[in-house]
Amino acid sequence: MEEPNDDMNKTATEYSQKMGVKIFDIESKALISILHEKDARELGVFPLERIELVCPRTKKRVVTVIDTTKSMVKIDQIGIFKDVQKILGLKEDDELMVSPSLQPESVRFIKKKLRGLELTPVEITAIVNDIAQNRVSEIEASAFMAAVYIHGNTLPEIVAMTKALANGGERLQLSKTPVVDKHSIGGINGRVTLVLVPIMASAGVYIPKTASRSITSAAGTADAMEVLADVELSVAQIKQITEKIGGVICWGGGVELAPGDDKIIKIEHPLSLDPEGQVIASVMAKKFAVGAKYLIIDIPVGPDMKVDNREKAEAMAKRFVEVGKRLGMKVEVALTDGTEPLGRAFGPALEAKYALETLEGKRFDNLGEKACELAGLLLELCGKAPKKKGKIMAKNILQSRKAHKKMLEILKAQNGKVFSSEKVPMAKLKATVIAQGDGVIANMNVKRLVEVARIAGAPGDAQAGVLLLVEKGNTVVKGQGLMEIYSNNKQKLDLAKKYALESSGLEPQQLILQEIM
Amino acid sequence: MEEPNDDMNKTATEYSQKMGVKIFDIESKALISILHEKDARELGVFPLERIELVCPRTKKRVVTVIDTTKSMVKIDQIGIFKDVQKILGLKEDDELMVSPSLQPESVRFIKKKLRGLELTPVEITAIVNDIAQNRVSEIEASAFMAAVYIHGNTLPEIVAMTKALANGGERLQLSKTPVVDKHSIGGINGRVTLVLVPIMASAGVYIPKTASRSITSAAGTADAMEVLADVELSVAQIKQITEKIGGVICWGGGVELAPGDDKIIKIEHPLSLDPEGQVIASVMAKKFAVGAKYLIIDIPVGPDMKVDNREKAEAMAKRFVEVGKRLGMKVEVALTDGTEPLGRAFGPALEAKYALETLEGKRFDNLGEKACELAGLLLELCGKAPKKKGKIMAKNILQSRKAHKKMLEILKAQNGKVFSSEKVPMAKLKATVIAQGDGVIANMNVKRLVEVARIAGAPGDAQAGVLLLVEKGNTVVKGQGLMEIYSNNKQKLDLAKKYALESSGLEPQQLILQEIM
Repeated sequence: MEEPNDDMNKTATEYSQKMGVKIFDIESKALISILHEKDARELGVFPLERIELVCPRTKKRVVTVIDTTKSMVKIDQIGIFKDVQKILGLKEDDELMVSPSLQPESVRFIKKKLRGLELTPVEITAIVNDIAQNRVSEIEASAFMAAVYIHGNTLPEIVAMTKALANGGERLQLSKTPVVDKHSIGGINGRVTLVLVPIMASAGVYIPKTASRSITSAAGTADAMEVLADVELSVAQIKQITEKIGGVICWGGGVELAPGDDKIIKIEHPLSLDPEGQVIASVMAKKFAVGAKYLIIDIPVGPDMKVDNREKAEAMAKRFVEVGKRLGMKVEVALTDGTEPLGRAFGPALEAKYALETLEGKRFDNLGEKACELAGLLLELCGKAPKKKGKIMAKNILQSRKAHKKMLEILKAQNGKVFSSEKVPMAKLKATVIAQGDGVIANMNVKRLVEVARIAGAPGDAQAGVLLLVEKGNTVVKGQGLMEIYSNNKQKLDLAKKYALESSGLEPQQLILQEIM
Repeated sequence: MEEPNDDMNKTATEYSQKMGVKIFDIESKALISILHEKDARELGVFPLERIELVCPRTKKRVVTVIDTTKSMVKIDQIGIFKDVQKILGLKEDDELMVSPSLQPESVRFIKKKLRGLELTPVEITAIVNDIAQNRVSEIEASAFMAAVYIHGNTLPEIVAMTKALANGGERLQLSKTPVVDKHSIGGINGRVTLVLVPIMASAGVYIPKTASRSITSAAGTADAMEVLADVELSVAQIKQITEKIGGVICWGGGVELAPGDDKIIKIEHPLSLDPEGQVIASVMAKKFAVGAKYLIIDIPVGPDMKVDNREKAEAMAKRFVEVGKRLGMKVEVALTDGTEPLGRAFGPALEAKYALETLEGKRFDNLGEKACELAGLLLELCGKAPKKKGKIMAKNILQSRKAHKKMLEILKAQNGKVFSSEKVPMAKLKATVIAQGDGVIANMNVKRLVEVARIAGAPGDAQAGVLLLVEKGNTVVKGQGLMEIYSNNKQKLDLAKKYALESSGLEPQQLILQEIM
């Protein structure tokens, strides 16, 4: 179908109506505004249709769907929820210019992708911008993600998407070099980043790490870091802290670096969609936007990981390196073992505590090992360490507690709340899952453990999660504790325990080798 | 990923909190309720997460997403918008049982469809029910529709979807026979149904026509009928009117007949997605639910129609007949000409007026002709007319004004507002598009004319639309009026005229043969 062209959209916004603002103390996440029925009719818009709001004072604009009312707002007044207020930077006595918003052109490009056709860079850019600026609805954005999931992306599409995401926001310009970065394709627990960043910063390189919140895991790095310190930093703060201390760990969604990415994550979330092309573009856009020149990508491979086999991992790795090349970055990809938990913790607070214990020298297991290996590769990549010497350098930094000291500096710079693993706040409620028989722990299913932690409330409840009491290979006897489940909500705790014990999820039998040794 | 199983969902709802109700005078279409931040924390839910509300008095339940507030509702009180109030049948002094709602199992089946796998009838049923009952979000439902659009549906999937849609609501049980029905796959203008239903009812058969509102066209039959009479009837009213008068024309979305269908239409709407399997299931479910035994399906075929070639139309026709057979219905499919407008009107009021004029004997063109042809086929199919005699019978009923008299009875029974083509209310504003040169009208692009009508505000503004002043083959001179555009909104009228004149849409040149005769 021919859609109205871009020129028409511009024309539509020439007409607008000035309105007073009434702010409602409601957090909705969805972008909604409320018009009096008469104004809606006057503007020619109906519930669920879109209007564009422009604030002449702050110069910000946003597109929202409308609800209508006969009594909640007056004529010539528009009702605004907190989320829209925040975007527009509104005060109660502001006025807004309100106009109908036609369907953006990018809806036609989404339809093209649904038909399985390759999109041009211009079309990709239009879609990414319209998602970032809320000009397309969640229904439209979801159909786009489904189409990308099913049809995949070409390399030129990924490069275009990366640039569109990166150019849609601010760019970090550090005055120091080398700027390095690290990213792990999710699926595994354990907060390697909380150990790796202070190691790198101690080695004299600059790592402005913008981390994500959880999509399908029990905790994202941002969720875990938030237990310890502020993670919503401005671009100016990231610059200042990184230049001074060498590293920062903040939430990527909290800054205007590739802001479209977080809208996309929100859409992918409910169905756990993360098509390869989108994952690569999302990651590379954030790295491009912070000005990273050296980048290590960790792809955990395992039957329950996002990337479930080696072949897929290698193909993905090649695309990462290629996209990096086209953006002027040196990228190395490490395929890592995704068949076992990293450390023993699942959930923001528990994983933050575990990483702190590793930095404090109280623990050193596969989590610390992996952090040193990845840090080592990155040190070699940016020329700070000779080939094959990176890991030793990283391990020395960790074991000498230099990394721990650096972490305390970072926490302090980020307005830290917790500076010791012993001070990490714990959930009110705890349940222990015990072995139903004797045996040996032959296998641990990371995905099911994540599921238990999520049912317990993680990551929304930061203190919810799972702490394993056993390791792979351990011999256990009937009645012995296998894991502790933490939650602040009784019903979620009960459900998680039930799931761990009885449901299709994690059963103790599955933790235990079937035949007794 | 393993999801919590159904048993767990049941467990989750065992826990609930009793709350008072505060009703907000807001129409939102989306299902939202507002919790005090403290209650949300207590329940362990966060903005955009879902809760289930049960009203002990009305025994109704609904799943909504939540917004949170510090001040708009009190602790132990839940804020409800009009749409949720309506579903639950709530009064201000009602109490609700509120509990967290886990992600329904059908989200896993949606993911399966995204992967391109065939769904079982049980899985299809779960998805349809969860969409109908708002247990899956719009994001999830949209991804499902995209997957169906891309991967298609198998015949067993279509049959399962049809039954699930039909069984999700009430069923109409008429005491009279034969019960017939008609459906047209959209894309073309002209309200054949408004002419056909009174013809059939005059012939002594029963036609409880539940019509749709527009998805991608300038007007649906329900939109046009609503200009003349009430279209939101109860199942009891449909039964009573049809049994007494022989026919009814109401909005299918206004009754509890296959209610899931209208949720699906709402999701398909923004992207104009209507995958074949979904179209067949939606149509057949409505027909099955009204108890139709004889059904004629009209598929307009043309380059700009939903079905753009004969091969596709024939394949679709076979599936309609086959699904009908499995549901115990006799189905005949007519492939019709979709290359020319039906009559001259586009838009609810203009099309309603045009159909009335046809019934009143003031017009007889391809619109009346088609109504008689389809009515004729239906009369033959149900045995009211001998083979090859149906059209003559239908034409006699129309030309003798019996159909007109019957239409007035139907309008009266449906609380009619307008009983004459001369009384149809017209838009405040009108613009005339004139020929930019001399020529002959060689071609009319239905899709672009629909687009002009939609930009003018149709079907949301029922009086908006297009009335053609010329027909295919007419000779026109420079300055002669080609079409009138109607709207109640100045900016939409201007945009529509601009689109008709200049844009990629309808240009006068395209209406006019390039060489002067």
